Amino acid sequence: MNTNGFRDTLYTIIFEANTPSGKAFDVALFATIGVSVTAIMLESVPSIAAHPGASQWFKSIELITTLLFSIEYVLRLWCSPKPGPYARSFYGVIDLVSTLPFYLAVLFPATGTLAVIRALRLLRIFRVLKLSRFLIEGNLLWQSLLRSSRKIGVFLFTVVLLCVIMGTIMYTVEGPENGFSSIPLSIYWAIVTLTTVGYGDIAPGTVLGQFLASAIMIMGYAIIAVPTGIVTVDLANNHNTKEPTLKTCENCGNSCSKDANYCPECGTEFPLND
Amino acid sequence: MNTNGFRDTLYTIIFEANTPSGKAFDVALFATIGVSVTAIMLESVPSIAAHPGASQWFKSIELITTLLFSIEYVLRLWCSPKPGPYARSFYGVIDLVSTLPFYLAVLFPATGTLAVIRALRLLRIFRVLKLSRFLIEGNLLWQSLLRSSRKIGVFLFTVVLLCVIMGTIMYTVEGPENGFSSIPLSIYWAIVTLTTVGYGDIAPGTVLGQFLASAIMIMGYAIIAVPTGIVTVDLANNHNTKEPTLKTCENCGNSCSKDANYCPECGTEFPLND
Amino acid sequence: MNTNGFRDTLYTIIFEANTPSGKAFDVALFATIGVSVTAIMLESVPSIAAHPGASQWFKSIELITTLLFSIEYVLRLWCSPKPGPYARSFYGVIDLVSTLPFYLAVLFPATGTLAVIRALRLLRIFRVLKLSRFLIEGNLLWQSLLRSSRKIGVFLFTVVLLCVIMGTIMYTVEGPENGFSSIPLSIYWAIVTLTTVGYGDIAPGTVLGQFLASAIMIMGYAIIAVPTGIVTVDLANNHNTKEPTLKTCENCGNSCSKDANYCPECGTEFPLND
Amino acid sequence: MNTNGFRDTLYTIIFEANTPSGKAFDVALFATIGVSVTAIMLESVPSIAAHPGASQWFKSIELITTLLFSIEYVLRLWCSPKPGPYARSFYGVIDLVSTLPFYLAVLFPATGTLAVIRALRLLRIFRVLKLSRFLIEGNLLWQSLLRSSRKIGVFLFTVVLLCVIMGTIMYTVEGPENGFSSIPLSIYWAIVTLTTVGYGDIAPGTVLGQFLASAIMIMGYAIIAVPTGIVTVDLANNHNTKEPTLKTCENCGNSCSKDANYCPECGTEFPLND
Repeated sequence: MNTNGFRDTLYTIIFEANTPSGKAFDVALFATIGVSVTAIMLESVPSIAAHPGASQWFKSIELITTLLFSIEYVLRLWCSPKPGPYARSFYGVIDLVSTLPFYLAVLFPATGTLAVIRALRLLRIFRVLKLSRFLIEGNLLWQSLLRSSRKIGVFLFTVVLLCVIMGTIMYTVEGPENGFSSIPLSIYWAIVTLTTVGYGDIAPGTVLGQFLASAIMIMGYAIIAVPTGIVTVDLANNHNTKEPTLKTCENCGNSCSKDANYCPECGTEFPLND
Repeated sequence: MNTNGFRDTLYTIIFEANTPSGKAFDVALFATIGVSVTAIMLESVPSIAAHPGASQWFKSIELITTLLFSIEYVLRLWCSPKPGPYARSFYGVIDLVSTLPFYLAVLFPATGTLAVIRALRLLRIFRVLKLSRFLIEGNLLWQSLLRSSRKIGVFLFTVVLLCVIMGTIMYTVEGPENGFSSIPLSIYWAIVTLTTVGYGDIAPGTVLGQFLASAIMIMGYAIIAVPTGIVTVDLANNHNTKEPTLKTCENCGNSCSKDANYCPECGTEFPLND
Repeated sequence: MNTNGFRDTLYTIIFEANTPSGKAFDVALFATIGVSVTAIMLESVPSIAAHPGASQWFKSIELITTLLFSIEYVLRLWCSPKPGPYARSFYGVIDLVSTLPFYLAVLFPATGTLAVIRALRLLRIFRVLKLSRFLIEGNLLWQSLLRSSRKIGVFLFTVVLLCVIMGTIMYTVEGPENGFSSIPLSIYWAIVTLTTVGYGDIAPGTVLGQFLASAIMIMGYAIIAVPTGIVTVDLANNHNTKEPTLKTCENCGNSCSKDANYCPECGTEFPLND
Repeated sequence: MNTNGFRDTLYTIIFEANTPSGKAFDVALFATIGVSVTAIMLESVPSIAAHPGASQWFKSIELITTLLFSIEYVLRLWCSPKPGPYARSFYGVIDLVSTLPFYLAVLFPATGTLAVIRALRLLRIFRVLKLSRFLIEGNLLWQSLLRSSRKIGVFLFTVVLLCVIMGTIMYTVEGPENGFSSIPLSIYWAIVTLTTVGYGDIAPGTVLGQFLASAIMIMGYAIIAVPTGIVTVDLANNHNTKEPTLKTCENCGNSCSKDANYCPECGTEFPLND
């Protein structure tokens, strides 16, 4: 019973954001993620990494933040009434992945070649995704995008088909002598152009090529209207059916109807609606 | 009668996607297109084409996929109750064009100069358009774009007029010494700028030129709102009149009112509405 | 009376597009503009201008098209029941400006220095604007843009203020050693960045500069939503109040309420509404 | 009483724009800002600053405009019935900041090192923000943006998270040998790419890098629809609830409900609604 009381208190602190201690926990988590991710970034800057003692600092920060994240992960598993669904949820996987590289490096020090170290560093940056826990509002936006995802998917697929065709035509027209050295590279160029990014690392040199490029640009300038229209119409319809019909599960971050008593994703019981 | 039964079965497999064998056919077609198009792309990469034996591999893949597409084309013609309209439809032309280059190369090997081989390669990539058969959802999007096409056409024509004027002014202001070596090239630059692509292969060098370029950019930044507004309004109106009022012809891919009994494009009789 | 009958017939041919001869006139006008503008463009391409005999060809085309445009202008003035308003209208000015450079060059051959010839060439390209006569549909789009023009003007003014401030900050941060050699140039860079054009002729070199540039880009990525929203809302409202409440004056191109009996811009009497 | 009458007249001239003298004051203010800001810009252009006598001109303009702005600031403080709120309002701070650098330079001439002079110059450019006083219409647009600011903030935060992840992956894939020399620089590149700016100062060189870059571009091309949708929906809703429900405080520029009798920001009493 004593343990249960402690577990319940911990649950309130870790999973809920309404109490003062819950808010303090969130702020501490936010700060730890900030310190950890900043350290990973700065470690990659040659002029900073060259400083004497920098390596020692970065190792210390890595050790401390990883320990804190490990403790958080274990406590989350221990507190959660249904640890299985949490471990398999999006946030659960992120929580695990963000601590794992450290232990892998400790366990298999012999594999520490450059490529592996880099891949590990890569995994650590995913800690930044833990910040998305604070984006409850964002769920509605992404839901809108997801709800339109089939239409947007069809649109993007059409864009890619278009780029494959236009890239091949440009490869034939311009050829390797103007930098279009292969079909895949020409398709890459078509994507750079159609999306209006326009690096300029490859640019058409022949008159016909510039004419075709102009056509691609104007096409890209006009068809950007399609995804914008899709999302706008969806948001406008979503706006009419008022927002508070959704609530977010504290355990796994899933959103569902406000009427639900249990999270349909992980089974956590919701507190009664006030 | 036996032949008819076989033909009907084949029709179901090739033209319909609801039966298990129909789905299997679609998956096989998708995979064949994927292999074929990937091979065409990789063949153009110098480092891959230089591998010993690569040429043999690419020839084999080309031979096999072309045979498969030829068989598909012949069967489609044979199965279809009205082969004429199919052969003249968008998909029919694509199906023919995607196999033709192979036979042309076999029939006229003497014409195999570099330019002709390239043009043939170009035609083969159109196989990727066969994938658009799977984009039934896309029809509604493109219909929306097509329905607004007159307005969008007027908009794009205005954009081109604007670019012609601005390009000529920039040619006068900047002149050949800053890279604006002719009016057509200056118009190309104006299109690159107005569509916010901005390669940077040509950039204004004089103060007046940079001032005019700024005006074009801000203009391009503001008038992109016009096509977006047109498509959004059309999509919003289309959304209210519910979507299932349209159906897609299995034979030629044309979309028409759900009430129609025959495809207005190719005359295929529709199955009864359930 | 004989003259009047001929004048009326000419009026129908030149100002109206519903009769066969009116359509033929439009097609001929369209073709003449196309030939004239194409010749002006090609004349500026060094490799084409260097051809022996090219100069003679371009001079002939210029002579013939200018004569045709002059005849058209005189006939329009003669036919129009109210030639004054036509001469002062947008199309009237364009019609005059597109023939004037030729006569100026004939009258003042001594002033034919390079700069003046260029300025003349510049004026001739405005003939392309005569094509906008065929853009009757476009009036509604530009009206929508014009109706929102005050809001869009405020938006663009805010964008320019933002670019002035950000450009000056970047000039202070980056300085001449990174290509930001003066405040006006830095403001030009800020406009290139905010409008997402991104030439890359000037790019930030310091860490702080890249951080500020990122902020400008993300700002530009977000606030493009403002003009889009304004035009979309206006188009949506315009869509509900059905379009045929407007009609276009055949004489001066002005649009007004369908109930009007006389063009409020140039006073031409409208044919009775059927 | 005499002073009060003079103060009231001055208040009408400086704070209100409806009387002829008020309009004249606005025009004079506009012109002074224009002259002052243009001088600051031109002073930074090396070729202009090198002219003999230019320095003297710029100093004179700076002296005169600063004196005028100082007089305006003092009069505003003296006229305003509640000078405290005005001094603390947005416009009040701008008015102070735009004159301060001059007096700082006079008071502490010894601190005139290059960096400090630059920072002072930087502050003077903020005079351009005084122009925003004339953007009463703009308030409604920015209110719409501000009302959507939480959603747009969530969206931008998601974009930044995405850029951090993609930048780190690109750093691992491309590495310093292709210009991605550190994680922060790679994140900068990801922002340049996702916002479709595309300078081209850093561009992927490996096949995998170009593939990932294509994915980022297409992502950026599609998700720009989100802020556009948010602002459009908000503007559409705002449009229905008619605009004149807001009024702008003459004293501090704050907008509030038309029903208010006192400005909720600075406490100025509003004139009675007619």
